[in-house]
Amino acid sequence: MLIVIKEKNHESLIQKLQSMLSEKYGCESHIIGGNKRVLAVTGDTSGVDVEFLKNMDGIRSVDRVDRPYKLASRERKDRTMIEISKDCVIGDPKSVVMIAGPCSIDSEGQLDETAAMAKARDIKILRGGAYKPRTGPYSFQGKGEEGLKLIAKAGQKYGMKTISEIMKAEDLPLFEEYVDMMQVGARNMQNYELLKALGKSKKPVMLKRGLAAKLEEWLLAAEYILAGGNPNVILCERGIRTFEEEVRFTLCLGSVPALRELTHLPIIVDPSHAMGKTRWVKDAALGGVAVGADGLIVEIHPRPSESSCDASQLLDLEHWNECMDGVTAVAKAIGKRVV
Amino acid sequence: MLIVIKEKNHESLIQKLQSMLSEKYGCESHIIGGNKRVLAVTGDTSGVDVEFLKNMDGIRSVDRVDRPYKLASRERKDRTMIEISKDCVIGDPKSVVMIAGPCSIDSEGQLDETAAMAKARDIKILRGGAYKPRTGPYSFQGKGEEGLKLIAKAGQKYGMKTISEIMKAEDLPLFEEYVDMMQVGARNMQNYELLKALGKSKKPVMLKRGLAAKLEEWLLAAEYILAGGNPNVILCERGIRTFEEEVRFTLCLGSVPALRELTHLPIIVDPSHAMGKTRWVKDAALGGVAVGADGLIVEIHPRPSESSCDASQLLDLEHWNECMDGVTAVAKAIGKRVV
Amino acid sequence: MLIVIKEKNHESLIQKLQSMLSEKYGCESHIIGGNKRVLAVTGDTSGVDVEFLKNMDGIRSVDRVDRPYKLASRERKDRTMIEISKDCVIGDPKSVVMIAGPCSIDSEGQLDETAAMAKARDIKILRGGAYKPRTGPYSFQGKGEEGLKLIAKAGQKYGMKTISEIMKAEDLPLFEEYVDMMQVGARNMQNYELLKALGKSKKPVMLKRGLAAKLEEWLLAAEYILAGGNPNVILCERGIRTFEEEVRFTLCLGSVPALRELTHLPIIVDPSHAMGKTRWVKDAALGGVAVGADGLIVEIHPRPSESSCDASQLLDLEHWNECMDGVTAVAKAIGKRVV
Amino acid sequence: MLIVIKEKNHESLIQKLQSMLSEKYGCESHIIGGNKRVLAVTGDTSGVDVEFLKNMDGIRSVDRVDRPYKLASRERKDRTMIEISKDCVIGDPKSVVMIAGPCSIDSEGQLDETAAMAKARDIKILRGGAYKPRTGPYSFQGKGEEGLKLIAKAGQKYGMKTISEIMKAEDLPLFEEYVDMMQVGARNMQNYELLKALGKSKKPVMLKRGLAAKLEEWLLAAEYILAGGNPNVILCERGIRTFEEEVRFTLCLGSVPALRELTHLPIIVDPSHAMGKTRWVKDAALGGVAVGADGLIVEIHPRPSESSCDASQLLDLEHWNECMDGVTAVAKAIGKRVV
Repeated sequence: MLIVIKEKNHESLIQKLQSMLSEKYGCESHIIGGNKRVLAVTGDTSGVDVEFLKNMDGIRSVDRVDRPYKLASRERKDRTMIEISKDCVIGDPKSVVMIAGPCSIDSEGQLDETAAMAKARDIKILRGGAYKPRTGPYSFQGKGEEGLKLIAKAGQKYGMKTISEIMKAEDLPLFEEYVDMMQVGARNMQNYELLKALGKSKKPVMLKRGLAAKLEEWLLAAEYILAGGNPNVILCERGIRTFEEEVRFTLCLGSVPALRELTHLPIIVDPSHAMGKTRWVKDAALGGVAVGADGLIVEIHPRPSESSCDASQLLDLEHWNECMDGVTAVAKAIGKRVV
Repeated sequence: MLIVIKEKNHESLIQKLQSMLSEKYGCESHIIGGNKRVLAVTGDTSGVDVEFLKNMDGIRSVDRVDRPYKLASRERKDRTMIEISKDCVIGDPKSVVMIAGPCSIDSEGQLDETAAMAKARDIKILRGGAYKPRTGPYSFQGKGEEGLKLIAKAGQKYGMKTISEIMKAEDLPLFEEYVDMMQVGARNMQNYELLKALGKSKKPVMLKRGLAAKLEEWLLAAEYILAGGNPNVILCERGIRTFEEEVRFTLCLGSVPALRELTHLPIIVDPSHAMGKTRWVKDAALGGVAVGADGLIVEIHPRPSESSCDASQLLDLEHWNECMDGVTAVAKAIGKRVV
Repeated sequence: MLIVIKEKNHESLIQKLQSMLSEKYGCESHIIGGNKRVLAVTGDTSGVDVEFLKNMDGIRSVDRVDRPYKLASRERKDRTMIEISKDCVIGDPKSVVMIAGPCSIDSEGQLDETAAMAKARDIKILRGGAYKPRTGPYSFQGKGEEGLKLIAKAGQKYGMKTISEIMKAEDLPLFEEYVDMMQVGARNMQNYELLKALGKSKKPVMLKRGLAAKLEEWLLAAEYILAGGNPNVILCERGIRTFEEEVRFTLCLGSVPALRELTHLPIIVDPSHAMGKTRWVKDAALGGVAVGADGLIVEIHPRPSESSCDASQLLDLEHWNECMDGVTAVAKAIGKRVV
Repeated sequence: MLIVIKEKNHESLIQKLQSMLSEKYGCESHIIGGNKRVLAVTGDTSGVDVEFLKNMDGIRSVDRVDRPYKLASRERKDRTMIEISKDCVIGDPKSVVMIAGPCSIDSEGQLDETAAMAKARDIKILRGGAYKPRTGPYSFQGKGEEGLKLIAKAGQKYGMKTISEIMKAEDLPLFEEYVDMMQVGARNMQNYELLKALGKSKKPVMLKRGLAAKLEEWLLAAEYILAGGNPNVILCERGIRTFEEEVRFTLCLGSVPALRELTHLPIIVDPSHAMGKTRWVKDAALGGVAVGADGLIVEIHPRPSESSCDASQLLDLEHWNECMDGVTAVAKAIGKRVV
C-alpha cells in the first residue's frame, strides 16, 4: 500500500500514520523518496481502512496496490479444476461444461421429462430449483425438500450429477444428502451467513454474481467460502442490473477474460436469466462459449408455458437442440469440447 | 391487466389466452373493443407471469396496470405511523425522527460515550452494529451477542430505544430480547428467509434498500414482512450503486416523493453510508430532511479514527452538532420538528 | 395507445382526454369495454406526450403499444444490406464484415504500416481517426483534414474502403470528398444537428451507441438520419457505462439479438473500446461474432506504445493475427464467412 | 504520478519506463525507495496514457495522484462568482439563484404569461428553449431564432436576464445577440466542437451534466470552455441515468458537496428534468437547496397541458408558489437568501 502525503516533510502526519498503522493494523511502514511524501506500507494490509486514510487531512491518495482477496487470487494458483465426475471437470481449459434442467422442479413427471431432454444431449449435470427466491411473497416458492428428493432420483435414474439452489444455512444437511453441487443465487451473493456455512461443506458451490456486484466484491464473497475451508468454488456470471431494460439483465461477458486474470476459479455463464427471452438465449450462450467461459447453465423445459417460474426464458426441445448444436460448433472452433 | 394482440380477430389466440389465464392463474378475462385486440384480465393477477405472456407469438404488449404488492400499497392506507415511544412516532407527518450511534459496537466505553453524544442532542433511538456484514471475510465481523447486551444496557442507561442489524433468522430470539427495532441491511434486502422470519416478529423492522433494487422490488421485499404478519416496516434509502464513484453510493432522494405515492410505509434516509465521507454527511442529511423523509439514521463516534468500521464516514462531536443544528433548522423550515 | 382510467364511467375525464388527443395531436380515440375505463387511441401517436398523460389526475396507466420509430423499425423491413464494395455487404446474414485500423492517424508511415497489417488479413474497410473526441482539452485532438487525406491515400493504395469519425456538420463536405463511410461516436449519438446533416448524405453512417442510451433512444437517433433521407445507417454496440470498472465499458452483447427484432439495420460490435485492454479484445471479438453481429470494428497498430491515443487497447501484429484466426473459426462455426 | 512495478530491482523495465516518459510525454521520473519498485513521475503528467502504463507487462499499478483538470480545479481558486446583474451573483455563498421559465418557447403570449409568473416571485433569470434537443425527429424542435427574439423581448419587458440552450457552434452569433447566458444540454456535454466555440464567448455558460458523466469527465468538459478563454462556467446537476425508472433520472445530490471540493465553479440543480413529474419537483428543489446548491433552474408554465414539451414536469401557478415558498424557507434555514 502506498500513501501519498500532500506536503513535503510533514513529520507530524508521518508519525501519526506510522503509529496508527502499527498499532491498529500491525503493519510496518517506511517513508520512501527524498521529499518524504510517500509512505510504503508492508505486511498484511487487508484489514486497513483505505477510505478512512483517504479522508484524513493532509493525505492526497492511497493506493492499495494488492488485491484484498488472497485465496481467490490468481497470484496464488493458475487454475482450479473441479472434478464433478470422471468425465466432467469444471475449469479444464479444454472443456465447456453444460448444466441444464428446469428453472423450478414442479413435479416428478416434469423433472423426468426435462432430465431426459438434457440426457439426450449427453448433459452431465442436471439443475433444478427446489427452493426458489421469488421477488414477491405471493409467487410459488418451490417444493422444498420434496424437490431435492426428486432431483436426487432423476439424477440417479439418468446418471447425472445434480445442482440446486440453497437459500439458508440450516438447509445444508439436506443439500449434503441429496445433491452434488450447490448454487448461491445472485440475491444471496452477500448473504455472509450462508457463505460461511458453505465454507464448511466439501461440495462444489456455484456462486452467482450479485446484480450490483463489482468483480472485487464477488471475489471477496468467494473468499468467504474459500476461507471457510471449501476450495471448490465456481463463479457464475448471470448479468448485472443496468439502465438497459430490453434485455432482462446486462450479461457482462467482458467479465470472463477480466476474471481469468484475477482468479483461478472456474467461470460459468448463465444466458437464460440474463436474456429473459427464449429466443435470445442461444445467441447469448454462444457468446459465452466464444468469450471463454468454462461452461454454461441453461434452463430447459418440454413445455415452457406450463412452468411455475420463468416461463419466458425456458428453452423448449427445438430451441434446446439448436442451442446445443451451436454451442458444440463454437466450442470446437475455439479448440474445446462440450462436456 | 391488459393484453394487446397483434392482429385483429385472432380467435384461436384469444381462446388460448383465456383458457390459460383461467386454468393456470384463476383469472377471468374479457375481450374489449370491436376489433378484438384487447383482452382485459380481472381478478387477482399478481401471480400471472407477465414476461411469458409478452414473449408469446402474436402478443404486442402486456400492461399490468396494478402494482403487484398489496399490503405495502398506498391504495390500501394513507400512512403507517409506528410508535417507538410516547414521544417518538416514525411516520408522523410532523416529525423528523433521528437515529444515531456508532457503526459498530466496539466496547462498552465507546458505546457509552457515543450514546452520551446522541443523548446530548435528545436523540430517542440509539443505533449500533453487533453483527456486521463485511465485504471481506478478514474484516472485523462484530461482537455478536455481547454487542447486543451492551446496546441494551446503554439504551437503558440513557433512556433510549435501540436498533441493530440482524443477519440471520436464527438470531431472532436474541434480537427480540435485547433490542427495540431490527434493521435489515442492503445486502440482505432480498434474503427472503430472513424477511419471512421477521414477518413473525412484532418489533419494527427497518428495511434498507438493496444496491440494485428498484422501488417495486423493495416494496415487494417489504411485502414479505407485511404478509408474514408484521405491519411495522420502515423503508431506508441508503444510496444505490451507479457509475458515479466520487460518492460512495448515489443517494436517490427522488425516491422519497416517489415512494410516498406508492406506499404508506415510513421512509428514513441514511446519509452516512451514501456519502462515505464525514464532511459530506451533513449536506446529505439536510437534503434528506428537505425532500420529506420521516427521519434520518446517522453514524456518530467520539473519535472516528478508533472505530473498527466505516471510520471515514462517522461524525465526530463537532460535525455531529453542526449536522443536528442544520437538521433542526431545515425541519422547522418545512413545518416539522426533530424528534 | 391504450389509456387506462382509474374510475369507471368517468365521463368528464374521457371527454377531456378525447378533445386533447384530437386537438393537440390529431388522434382519434375510442372507449373500449363496457365500464369505460380503457381509451384506445389510433392514428399517428408518435407525437403524444405519454409522460404528461400518465401524470394526469385519474389516469392509471398509458401503454404506447407501438414503438415511436418508424423508419428504423423491423415492422417496415426485414434487413438492410449495405453494399460497401462488390465483395463486402454489411448486413448480409452470411457475412461478418471486419473493419480495422489505427485509433488515430498519427503519420503517413504509421497509417501505411497499419493498413498493410489489415490488408494482410484481407480486410476490406480501413478505419482511422482524423478528428478525435478527447475527454480532456489537453489531449491530442487528431490531424484533421490532413488525416482524411492520408486515409484516402492509404485506402487507394491498398484497395480498401475507408471510415473515419465526423464530429461536426460543417466538416461533411470534407468527409464526402475523402472517405467512404462516416462514423458518429458515442458522445455524439444525440448530437441532433450532426445527425440531421448526415441525413442529407448518401454515404453509409455507422452510429455508435451512447454510453447511457437505451435501445429505443439509439434507434430514435438512427431515425434522425433515416428521416433526413439517408437509408444507410449501421448501428455499433461499443459498451455502456455501468458500475463495473474492471472493464472499460460493459459490452452489452445481449443488445444484438434484441436489436435484431426491433430493427432491420445492420449491427457492428466494437470490442476494442469496450474492453480497453489489448489482451481481452480477442475474447470480446469472438463473443460479438458468436452472438450474431454483422461485423466488428477493431483497433490495430504495429507498435501500440507509439500511438497517440488508446494505446492500451490496440492489437499488435501477434494479437491481431490471433484475433482474426479466432474470428474466422467462430464465424465458420455459425455458418458465416469473414469479409 | 506513482508507478508501482511488480518485481524488485527490475532495471530493464525501469529504464524502458523512464525513457518513454521522458521522450513521449516530457516527464521526469525518479525511483523512490530501496527496492526500486516505485517510480515517481513529476512535471505535467496530464497527457500521460495511464491505461497504457497499467497494462504493460510487469506493472502492478499506476496512481495519477493529481486531477487531470487544471483550470476547473479547486486547487487553483476557491470560488468563482459570476455577476449576472448587480443583484444576482451565481456562486455567492450567501445566495440561492433561481432561474425559471417555460421548457419551450411556444408563442409570444405563452412566454409573456410565464415570464410574468416568474417575475411575480422576483426571479432574476428567465429560461426558455428556442432550439430543443428531442429524442425523436418527429417531435417539435423549437421555434429557433424567432424564439430567441421572443425571449429577448420578454427579458426586456420584465427586466430579467435570459438563458437558452445552444445546440451548435454556428448559432453562437445569434445567442450573443439575443440572450445573456447560454445552456449546454446533457446530450451535448461532450460535444467538444460546441464547447470549443463557447470558450470563445464571454457570456456565462451553464453546462449540464451528461447522463453517464462522471464528475471528472464533467469537469474536463468544463475545462474545454475554460481553456478556450471563457471563465464563466456554471455546472448544472440534472440527474444521471440509472436502473431506477420511477423517477425520470436519478438526481445525484451528493455531487454537490463532492463538486464543492473538486472545483471552484458554481453548481446549479435542475429538479424538473430529474423528477419528471410536476408534483415531485418541489421536494427535489428543496433537497437541492438544502444540500448546498448555488441555485435552481425550474420549468414553469401557466397551463402545462398546453406546452409543446415536457408537460408532465412543468409547475403551474399553484405548484410554483408552493415551490418558491419552500425554497425561500429552506434557504433561510441554512443562512442564505433567494435571489
